[in-house]
Amino acid sequence: MNVNDTNPDATGLEQLQALLVSGSGSPIGQTLKFRLVEIAEGHAVFEAEPGLHAYNPIGSVHGGFAATLLDSALGCAVHSKLKADQIHTTLELKVAYHRAITVETGTIRAIGSVMTMGRRTAYAEGRIVDANDRLLASATSTLMLMDRSS
Amino acid sequence: MNVNDTNPDATGLEQLQALLVSGSGSPIGQTLKFRLVEIAEGHAVFEAEPGLHAYNPIGSVHGGFAATLLDSALGCAVHSKLKADQIHTTLELKVAYHRAITVETGTIRAIGSVMTMGRRTAYAEGRIVDANDRLLASATSTLMLMDRSS
Amino acid sequence: MNVNDTNPDATGLEQLQALLVSGSGSPIGQTLKFRLVEIAEGHAVFEAEPGLHAYNPIGSVHGGFAATLLDSALGCAVHSKLKADQIHTTLELKVAYHRAITVETGTIRAIGSVMTMGRRTAYAEGRIVDANDRLLASATSTLMLMDRSS
Amino acid sequence: MNVNDTNPDATGLEQLQALLVSGSGSPIGQTLKFRLVEIAEGHAVFEAEPGLHAYNPIGSVHGGFAATLLDSALGCAVHSKLKADQIHTTLELKVAYHRAITVETGTIRAIGSVMTMGRRTAYAEGRIVDANDRLLASATSTLMLMDRSS
Repeated sequence: MNVNDTNPDATGLEQLQALLVSGSGSPIGQTLKFRLVEIAEGHAVFEAEPGLHAYNPIGSVHGGFAATLLDSALGCAVHSKLKADQIHTTLELKVAYHRAITVETGTIRAIGSVMTMGRRTAYAEGRIVDANDRLLASATSTLMLMDRSS
Repeated sequence: MNVNDTNPDATGLEQLQALLVSGSGSPIGQTLKFRLVEIAEGHAVFEAEPGLHAYNPIGSVHGGFAATLLDSALGCAVHSKLKADQIHTTLELKVAYHRAITVETGTIRAIGSVMTMGRRTAYAEGRIVDANDRLLASATSTLMLMDRSS
Repeated sequence: MNVNDTNPDATGLEQLQALLVSGSGSPIGQTLKFRLVEIAEGHAVFEAEPGLHAYNPIGSVHGGFAATLLDSALGCAVHSKLKADQIHTTLELKVAYHRAITVETGTIRAIGSVMTMGRRTAYAEGRIVDANDRLLASATSTLMLMDRSS
Repeated sequence: MNVNDTNPDATGLEQLQALLVSGSGSPIGQTLKFRLVEIAEGHAVFEAEPGLHAYNPIGSVHGGFAATLLDSALGCAVHSKLKADQIHTTLELKVAYHRAITVETGTIRAIGSVMTMGRRTAYAEGRIVDANDRLLASATSTLMLMDRSS
């Protein structure tokens, strides 16, 4: 499912709510096994079970897995505040790795929030936590907003 | 294949050369379809064909795909300079997205290089380019070095 | 005043409390006109009046001014959790600029907090706000911890 | 001198060349003692003698000093490619600290370059080196471009 295939009059929040209800997920979410589980205005949560499919060659989950979940959570947090005719693109993402993630970590949650949002740019932050709310990774991101037509 | 399963006397470069020759790749490399193609001291290159399996729900390759390739390239560039008893961990990674990547982009290369490396920390930088050497994404990373025994 | 000139048995928090009470400030704090105003374990606040002395050539306070305050706030938040024999160094700092700062902005506060702190590394985050708590800039930082003797 | 006070038909490069010739520098450059020494399209160099005026309370030059020089170098590198009616603003800056800077370091140079520049955004990178070209600090930055009138 592509959010751009939804009703063109839908706001960003409505698009993501439709995506959540559909349960279809994104292609990369299917490939890496993570899914959107919560969406609200300026807030998005993804969930995953870290598995061997996401391992690096040095015995733990690859840093790219956390980066992917965080890019999703921060991007969707911003997407949830878009008007019907707006689109966004991520300019940059910084991820900090606080603790190693392994198959023993269990279910993790990537939680993204909008910090500030103007007419042309947005800043978002987020974190990945385990079931005990221990901080595993965190991120900040800069995004650009555009009119769909421009 | 896990680089830690190789000869314990092997340097980081020897471990990565064995990984390259084996052609086995890393689990996440198999999942996301990217592979190590070059390794030298302080330098590593990964290659990938961006596919629909790596798409986000807004019609292009997910930013996490570029982040994963760059984390691999920068981490392996540092790994290639480790002594036999040293290990590394990535502290943080910042990725800048210069141009969208789609299935039309064709084969991309993620090239990582060590900027400086001391006893306890290393800094690496890298970029993703297409076949025409157009810059698609770039990254910088801070890594920590440790003795295997400590 | 140099915090290393204080009692060698003092913890990081005690060193910073002595610096705060002395009112002497740091050399760069005197040059750029900012000062430590609050210190607690894992938490530090600096205050400044943005002035023409900190202007860039395009008519607002230079981004380096916010970066300097944030580096101070994040570094001191970590310093406040050091044991007597520990020192720290900043590995990297990322600053996001949410709103322009000018002489009209009035007094600003840079607030730093420790996110996580291990034996060898610490992560801190912070923000600069105006008197109405509007977010002007934010930052994240990675720091390394060492034994003074090593 | 404010670059916006120059001829409104001047390109970014012409504005910076006038600033360089005038030798007047920016207010923060006078306060922290650093100066523009080279400007070309997509390239800018600042120079400074690290002094006690820029020290932190732990016995070396404050990280904000390097951040300020790098923000200047990267921002001016982008400014040098602006058309007469364009302005820029820095969205974020990440600085990596490779080696400590002290009064013994001697003259340092902050060299900024444009990586890519589109209609609405630009990415720049840079480094601070000593007289022996040793890497002391490096940075990457994301900038937004706007029409002056909009």
